[in-house]
Amino acid sequence: MNSFGTKFRLSIFGESHGNSIGVVLDGVPAGITLCEQDFEADLSRRRAGKKGTTPRVEPDQPHIVSGVFDGYTTGAPIAILFNNTNTRSKDYSLFRESPRPGHADLTASIKHNNYNDIRGGGHFSGRITLCLVAAGVVAKKMLPPAVRINAGLVELAGEKAGEGDWGEALSSAMRDGDSIGGVVECKCMNLPIGLGEPFFDSVESLISHLAFSIPGIRGIEFGDGFNASRMRGSEHNDCYINRKGETATNHAGGVNGGITNGNPVIFRIAVKPTSSITKGQETFNFISDRVEEFHVPGRHDACIALRVPVIAESIAAIAFANLI
Amino acid sequence: MNSFGTKFRLSIFGESHGNSIGVVLDGVPAGITLCEQDFEADLSRRRAGKKGTTPRVEPDQPHIVSGVFDGYTTGAPIAILFNNTNTRSKDYSLFRESPRPGHADLTASIKHNNYNDIRGGGHFSGRITLCLVAAGVVAKKMLPPAVRINAGLVELAGEKAGEGDWGEALSSAMRDGDSIGGVVECKCMNLPIGLGEPFFDSVESLISHLAFSIPGIRGIEFGDGFNASRMRGSEHNDCYINRKGETATNHAGGVNGGITNGNPVIFRIAVKPTSSITKGQETFNFISDRVEEFHVPGRHDACIALRVPVIAESIAAIAFANLI
Amino acid sequence: MNSFGTKFRLSIFGESHGNSIGVVLDGVPAGITLCEQDFEADLSRRRAGKKGTTPRVEPDQPHIVSGVFDGYTTGAPIAILFNNTNTRSKDYSLFRESPRPGHADLTASIKHNNYNDIRGGGHFSGRITLCLVAAGVVAKKMLPPAVRINAGLVELAGEKAGEGDWGEALSSAMRDGDSIGGVVECKCMNLPIGLGEPFFDSVESLISHLAFSIPGIRGIEFGDGFNASRMRGSEHNDCYINRKGETATNHAGGVNGGITNGNPVIFRIAVKPTSSITKGQETFNFISDRVEEFHVPGRHDACIALRVPVIAESIAAIAFANLI
Amino acid sequence: MNSFGTKFRLSIFGESHGNSIGVVLDGVPAGITLCEQDFEADLSRRRAGKKGTTPRVEPDQPHIVSGVFDGYTTGAPIAILFNNTNTRSKDYSLFRESPRPGHADLTASIKHNNYNDIRGGGHFSGRITLCLVAAGVVAKKMLPPAVRINAGLVELAGEKAGEGDWGEALSSAMRDGDSIGGVVECKCMNLPIGLGEPFFDSVESLISHLAFSIPGIRGIEFGDGFNASRMRGSEHNDCYINRKGETATNHAGGVNGGITNGNPVIFRIAVKPTSSITKGQETFNFISDRVEEFHVPGRHDACIALRVPVIAESIAAIAFANLI
Repeated sequence: MNSFGTKFRLSIFGESHGNSIGVVLDGVPAGITLCEQDFEADLSRRRAGKKGTTPRVEPDQPHIVSGVFDGYTTGAPIAILFNNTNTRSKDYSLFRESPRPGHADLTASIKHNNYNDIRGGGHFSGRITLCLVAAGVVAKKMLPPAVRINAGLVELAGEKAGEGDWGEALSSAMRDGDSIGGVVECKCMNLPIGLGEPFFDSVESLISHLAFSIPGIRGIEFGDGFNASRMRGSEHNDCYINRKGETATNHAGGVNGGITNGNPVIFRIAVKPTSSITKGQETFNFISDRVEEFHVPGRHDACIALRVPVIAESIAAIAFANLI
Repeated sequence: MNSFGTKFRLSIFGESHGNSIGVVLDGVPAGITLCEQDFEADLSRRRAGKKGTTPRVEPDQPHIVSGVFDGYTTGAPIAILFNNTNTRSKDYSLFRESPRPGHADLTASIKHNNYNDIRGGGHFSGRITLCLVAAGVVAKKMLPPAVRINAGLVELAGEKAGEGDWGEALSSAMRDGDSIGGVVECKCMNLPIGLGEPFFDSVESLISHLAFSIPGIRGIEFGDGFNASRMRGSEHNDCYINRKGETATNHAGGVNGGITNGNPVIFRIAVKPTSSITKGQETFNFISDRVEEFHVPGRHDACIALRVPVIAESIAAIAFANLI
Repeated sequence: MNSFGTKFRLSIFGESHGNSIGVVLDGVPAGITLCEQDFEADLSRRRAGKKGTTPRVEPDQPHIVSGVFDGYTTGAPIAILFNNTNTRSKDYSLFRESPRPGHADLTASIKHNNYNDIRGGGHFSGRITLCLVAAGVVAKKMLPPAVRINAGLVELAGEKAGEGDWGEALSSAMRDGDSIGGVVECKCMNLPIGLGEPFFDSVESLISHLAFSIPGIRGIEFGDGFNASRMRGSEHNDCYINRKGETATNHAGGVNGGITNGNPVIFRIAVKPTSSITKGQETFNFISDRVEEFHVPGRHDACIALRVPVIAESIAAIAFANLI
Repeated sequence: MNSFGTKFRLSIFGESHGNSIGVVLDGVPAGITLCEQDFEADLSRRRAGKKGTTPRVEPDQPHIVSGVFDGYTTGAPIAILFNNTNTRSKDYSLFRESPRPGHADLTASIKHNNYNDIRGGGHFSGRITLCLVAAGVVAKKMLPPAVRINAGLVELAGEKAGEGDWGEALSSAMRDGDSIGGVVECKCMNLPIGLGEPFFDSVESLISHLAFSIPGIRGIEFGDGFNASRMRGSEHNDCYINRKGETATNHAGGVNGGITNGNPVIFRIAVKPTSSITKGQETFNFISDRVEEFHVPGRHDACIALRVPVIAESIAAIAFANLI
């Protein structure tokens, strides 16, 4: 189903090329200041228009439909709507004939007996992550004021931050009509100790559940992550250094037994290279009944990882808003 | 909360050193054959007793308390109980004084105001994964008969299967009173196309949610996983080769847009080295009010990854039983 | 929280005097015909404008925002929006000073620290039942085609249908600036046998849960209802007359053990007299700090029971759509 | 499904004639005193053995399996088990042949393809209400200490308390091998203002959802209930008399807009006459393929309403524990 959360619940709706997309937020306490301008900073970080992102640029103007009165949340559900303005649906008419490799065109069509709205990926579009960011803006306001959540790209096309020439990696892929992936890291600081449940709602369970809602995510790791599997216990264990639970190291990424230990919660998510590339690929053609060369029409991101950091922050905030 | 699932819901309870642990399974259709012997094969794969696992060996005899009549499931909830027999609680009396590094001793104590049952990790113990395996046995019976789910250890202490000397890696860690981690891979074959929901209940979301319920998991990846972030779209995309949705490659790990595409669903989970090691470590002592050398008493696994494959299969089966 | 259902989930939002109200429907299968005209018949039955209902008449034009493509449901969430057009918010400025007897003015203000939108009752307004009716229209389409759900007023101001002069009862109350209540009965025919769960999701549990979401409901009974408590078992039991489960009588109202038995499901709900009356009443004044005479300003229904039958049908359809 | 609640969740399991029945309670805060003796007072009020109740008397000894350590709740799930001791399963062998009128024999068999455990009603038995009472004992401990919840029988076989001769009504029904029903009223005092959610989790919604989980309930009403539908608004409205929200009258039964207003929450539930009667009845015989005279064998309550008051208190406590 298209909703998440128990204490702070978001229900999303909308399609890439429909009139509008939106989200309903339930469980937001009354008395939080909220206006449409509050969304601009985070929405602009997700917005396309920079090098390596799609030329489809949407204004992403939020409309608060309910749940806010005189500038404050009321305790009632908050519905936020975004109109889609820059759509070119003719681009997508052929995706039932030639399902795009790496996309949900085929799986969604089979799941929904071809009734799915296939224009621009429909409900499966990355555009729906706009709703996650909007929810994240509200979730951040629900957390204690000291909490800081910051995410950034730490690896692009296999080059680590500060080590590789990201501009050239991007340019090269764009020249080739191809796409690249990346790794995004998110740090959550000053969280209270004790958030999370042992079974089944550990901090990592909630964050990963949300992370894999983002289209194009292939992996997630916390603290030392996969490297932890190559360490010895004596290297990986974090020594407590005081009664506040601070640890000398943070190999665990701020979580013990699924519960925050007060140290920074750190996770990384692997973003695949965009599936839609202008370079020719092969796919099965349902009319000709054979594999054929295929060029994805339309406008695409060469690297969606560039737009993911603010989404990573948002899902972290959503997870913690459910645990506080 | 300690339950998971909507169509197939499991609710777990119990503590490592209490009288018994158990699980209630709801949503199991009527008419499935089920008896206590059905659990033995999977339970024995999880059981300790082999090299590198704890000397605490439990018989793990399941008691089906309800929901089965004349050898068939009835459609009512199935409660399964396991008695704890081999407990040595005196070992654990000092963990409030010296919380074990890498364990939930401190986080659980703070979360529950010191009322948590700290004996053997209490409700946070790896012993509770017994309930996941029991649930997995039933979940596997709920899936179409063609479905095959197989997991195995593919990396131990950083050595890949077939490449390194795992026996020596294990012996060496045991000699040092230390522990090692590993990576477990799970393959799920012959799944129907169309399982999973775009937002928020993708196949990856449900599996990862469950995976991070297993104590000691640090990461999860699907298909090419983190490597996907280092590939180009033209390399990572899987070409469809027929109208059944089969793909020439399986970089995506059998999932497009959160929905199974009929190809094998493949995921890997990173298991950290066991936190409990006999080798000396430092931790904060709440009586002396300073960091002190500390030796974890009791009996431990040198490598919990050895016991994780059947748990990985179980969570996959549980996830799919919720999506079918 | 403001959502209901597991298989068919509705999430409602909006306030009486906000810009719009709406509902998100999740779990609707793909391939059902749906357009905005489909809502008109049921919406018009709920609409005010007839004798005994409020002079605030809204056009109640539904806007399908998502989840429908080329005239069919897509399997994605369906969001439906209704703009509020006929609002007079100045009427409601004094309800924090003088909370209206029988209304949620005071409880909502205390619950939400005075941040609640009090205009027209805000999120607590009967106007929100518009969303239930819209959800009911879709739910009815999800049920097997043979199913018939019909509700009507069977008692008004204590006068049973066909026995009392309802027109005069209504006129008399209106002349006095007062209000009256009534009883609505709903019959659901041709339901399959076997809907409902023993614990806790019996047919009666789901229907009553929804019924008490309708503002102004004071009671609900199934089959013989409260009269059953005055009968003997030999009178109340329904004899099965064939292997299809048909019964000679239907004292149980079509449900045995919480599960439909194939006979008509019949329930009645008691609707209180409208709280808002023009006749003077007393209430506590938070400025003067004492009980004072008070006249509710604004436009009101003299009898909300007149508008409830279609809502009763809607909640029945919503409940059954969750059980099928 | 067989669980209820979000903040305080109970999951029940077991069958009337199985080895044991039980309940898992999740969401109970750590630090509440709890021992097996705490259950005796309420369990004994539900226990059979008095005039008008079944001769099957069970000791109802609770076994706390988990979640309690050193006399205090730990914050982990609490599992409570009751062994069934006094079962006579041979009595029930014929209920697939002749489904008992008023019972779930037929609906459960059709729903579960005859795999249901039909002995003693299986999972549909009134015996499962034992779990509700056990959960209620814990729920009562989760409420503020000032809260008082008291229920009693206010009507038996149509005779109101203090007006009719209940002893004779019961004797007369027993002489005839018949059964009688009754009405139970529950009052909940000293509740905080503000409990309940407008849509869909009103106080009345949660209580009625639980009430209709009790076998044999036909109706529920709050405050004036069905009588409210026969009153005028000017009679039914409760005047607020001070800033604490106290009202001069309590026609609403302590709830406005689904939210407690601080006045006593009062509800009544209608209990049908026991379905199982020794007097002859007719039912369809699936072997002979015709309607036949039928005598229900076994031991029965002449009036289950006698045992319902403590169950009514329990469900009220469970509902409020979810709202606090």
